[in-house]
Amino acid sequence: MTEDDEVTAGSGASREERRRDPSRVLALTDGVFAIIITLLVLDIHVPELMAHKHLGTAISDVRPSFVSFVIAFIVAAMQWVGHRDLFTLIRYTDRSVIWLNLLTLFAVCLLPFGSALLSRYYEDPLALRVFGLILIGTSVTRTAIWAYATQRPLLIHEPLDRVSIRSGLALSVFPVVVYVIAFAIAIAGVSPQASLAVYASGPVLYFIAITLLHLVAPRGSALRQFT
Amino acid sequence: MTEDDEVTAGSGASREERRRDPSRVLALTDGVFAIIITLLVLDIHVPELMAHKHLGTAISDVRPSFVSFVIAFIVAAMQWVGHRDLFTLIRYTDRSVIWLNLLTLFAVCLLPFGSALLSRYYEDPLALRVFGLILIGTSVTRTAIWAYATQRPLLIHEPLDRVSIRSGLALSVFPVVVYVIAFAIAIAGVSPQASLAVYASGPVLYFIAITLLHLVAPRGSALRQFT
Amino acid sequence: MTEDDEVTAGSGASREERRRDPSRVLALTDGVFAIIITLLVLDIHVPELMAHKHLGTAISDVRPSFVSFVIAFIVAAMQWVGHRDLFTLIRYTDRSVIWLNLLTLFAVCLLPFGSALLSRYYEDPLALRVFGLILIGTSVTRTAIWAYATQRPLLIHEPLDRVSIRSGLALSVFPVVVYVIAFAIAIAGVSPQASLAVYASGPVLYFIAITLLHLVAPRGSALRQFT
Amino acid sequence: MTEDDEVTAGSGASREERRRDPSRVLALTDGVFAIIITLLVLDIHVPELMAHKHLGTAISDVRPSFVSFVIAFIVAAMQWVGHRDLFTLIRYTDRSVIWLNLLTLFAVCLLPFGSALLSRYYEDPLALRVFGLILIGTSVTRTAIWAYATQRPLLIHEPLDRVSIRSGLALSVFPVVVYVIAFAIAIAGVSPQASLAVYASGPVLYFIAITLLHLVAPRGSALRQFT
Repeated sequence: MTEDDEVTAGSGASREERRRDPSRVLALTDGVFAIIITLLVLDIHVPELMAHKHLGTAISDVRPSFVSFVIAFIVAAMQWVGHRDLFTLIRYTDRSVIWLNLLTLFAVCLLPFGSALLSRYYEDPLALRVFGLILIGTSVTRTAIWAYATQRPLLIHEPLDRVSIRSGLALSVFPVVVYVIAFAIAIAGVSPQASLAVYASGPVLYFIAITLLHLVAPRGSALRQFT
Repeated sequence: MTEDDEVTAGSGASREERRRDPSRVLALTDGVFAIIITLLVLDIHVPELMAHKHLGTAISDVRPSFVSFVIAFIVAAMQWVGHRDLFTLIRYTDRSVIWLNLLTLFAVCLLPFGSALLSRYYEDPLALRVFGLILIGTSVTRTAIWAYATQRPLLIHEPLDRVSIRSGLALSVFPVVVYVIAFAIAIAGVSPQASLAVYASGPVLYFIAITLLHLVAPRGSALRQFT
Repeated sequence: MTEDDEVTAGSGASREERRRDPSRVLALTDGVFAIIITLLVLDIHVPELMAHKHLGTAISDVRPSFVSFVIAFIVAAMQWVGHRDLFTLIRYTDRSVIWLNLLTLFAVCLLPFGSALLSRYYEDPLALRVFGLILIGTSVTRTAIWAYATQRPLLIHEPLDRVSIRSGLALSVFPVVVYVIAFAIAIAGVSPQASLAVYASGPVLYFIAITLLHLVAPRGSALRQFT
Repeated sequence: MTEDDEVTAGSGASREERRRDPSRVLALTDGVFAIIITLLVLDIHVPELMAHKHLGTAISDVRPSFVSFVIAFIVAAMQWVGHRDLFTLIRYTDRSVIWLNLLTLFAVCLLPFGSALLSRYYEDPLALRVFGLILIGTSVTRTAIWAYATQRPLLIHEPLDRVSIRSGLALSVFPVVVYVIAFAIAIAGVSPQASLAVYASGPVLYFIAITLLHLVAPRGSALRQFT
């Protein structure tokens, strides 16, 4: 991907445009997210009733699977919303965007495993570390797409002002920082509860940050793009 | 999401329009429904033939899985048809519509578990309650999208008259009421059969209600939108 | 769905057009077919090597799963191609088309189970009957859509001449007849091999019939539509 | 598919155009790839902790599943990128393109099984052969689509010069050659390690080849199409 390619694209060569069209990238991405979102339900098995056992106690055995489904659903939903926000800015893909996006999908695919692990061994530092690595993977790759695309005016719809680029980057880096802290706590082995709490704060803080942005940012600013 | 945002959208800012475009929301939703619809077939395992056993008796062991597939298929199909009806009215999404839609998908994802539970323990009040909660979840979230979007003229294609808004709301609330009654019967623990019967009446009554609407509603009315 | 609705649609009311737009129906259908096509691979488990066993013999245990995957793939692929052919004629959907299409998907969803059953118990008349019922289900529902839509000029793109309608119907009914014969043989219990052979002849004959149509039908005829 | 059909298509008959429209072919293909990419994660089960066992050792049991997921992900991602490249050139499908594409999907569907087999028995010549056959299948069918479509000017967007056609063919045949060599080594039974190394070199060499093409090929050349 050189400067020249972009010039060619700008000159409107229709073959170039088709090559850079993001529609199939989005179709694949939406497909993967749809599967990830529904995948963990497969893990919630209907309990077999043994003799002398209530359905109530049997169902409570399913709780870890359910918790793991809820965690994966929330994280995947936020990732998908963030991905959608990102690609409302991006007009064209190139080789790097496509492969960075595939890297994001790679990390997203591991979410069900990570949350299943966490829901069962939420006090084990190793489980907390694995979950953290996956979360960091999904956020870092998305940040990379943001950084890469916003540096290349021909890849995005309208030029973004510097403030928007930096705030968007900050908003992208923000969950990475939260997850790295939680990961560091899990590595240090101080307290699994503290690590868990920091992980959980990630989506909450992100949600609050975006709500504030909506209130603060001037109308029409790219910062109001975020969902 | 404030009043101002909507004004901005109305002024045709193309970045706003892309942010509000529902196409990826629908792509994700259709993907999730396609998976939910096919998911339960995975539960219908080909029976292993033990010695001295007919394939006939072995296959009849698969019956609960099959019944559960049929239930989930009908409910999911009705939900999908209703979702499609709703989004033929909605032109733009905003942050609330997207998250309400993700809540709908969350409830829809639990349908396979609920119907698997019901098909095996259809006489157990707990199974009836869990199934009811999931059904109520799918219907309440869809009603919320209807109520939210129809109150915001800039989110929908053409302005809806008050009668249409209210009748559409009634049609959306209607299954909620049916499911709550069935749920209440399951809670009261009077008779599992009665609760089951009320659940089953849900789709049937909804189907009849829409057929009547098609016959009664004036041509071009939004009420004929429903499928 | 009354005559009046169609008139309204013909007058170009955009709300009507959105309600009748088949795009989400196709999105759901393609999603279901994509899952069905890949679903059975889940059944091909990598064998666990026991002591004193070659990977060769272990892999040959996987054969029934592989055969079942191949059968389901061929049948599902033909159904998908046929569905795509059908919907290149159909411009608008209505309530009946949507529900008939959901019925088709219902039958298609059962294909993995049917072919898994057949691949394991191909000599059992019951397995042959179940498989036959599923195949008949997929073909009958598609025939119903053809018959319904071709009778309603406002649902299809260009008016079809009577010869095309009838030949298309014949082509749709054709697999039904083949499957009913195979099913009848399985019921009669004469010979599982004969029943199997008739099932297998279905796709082959269909393929030949379409190839002949391509050679015989005049250019531009709807009969050349078939893939 | 005869010469005549193509002439009809060129004359702009809209029924012909709909029949040849590749959009549903791409929707099915993207769906299948999305599933294949996420499928193997289902194989990465959260380990059950036995008494006296660390989560660390339990997780390391999951390693073969993880390796198999990584292999399948890389191969499937490259296949998808290649498929996307190919279909930025192709404007219309016909019966042959559709069935060749379904053959590609058939081979792609077997990737999870092949990589699961390889990750567990990477020293077994039989596993290496099965994996090789699947890879050859995916590449040969894609090469066939390239060869078929580039010979038919009416199927592609812009006419391709001879150099582009041949180089594209070479690029398509290239992985086939690599895989056939690795397959031959596996057949000869000389050294599983050598076979594995040649397989692994496939994606690496392909990536290098495309990077070189991007540097060497003149601007606007179809050779820069490849991602």
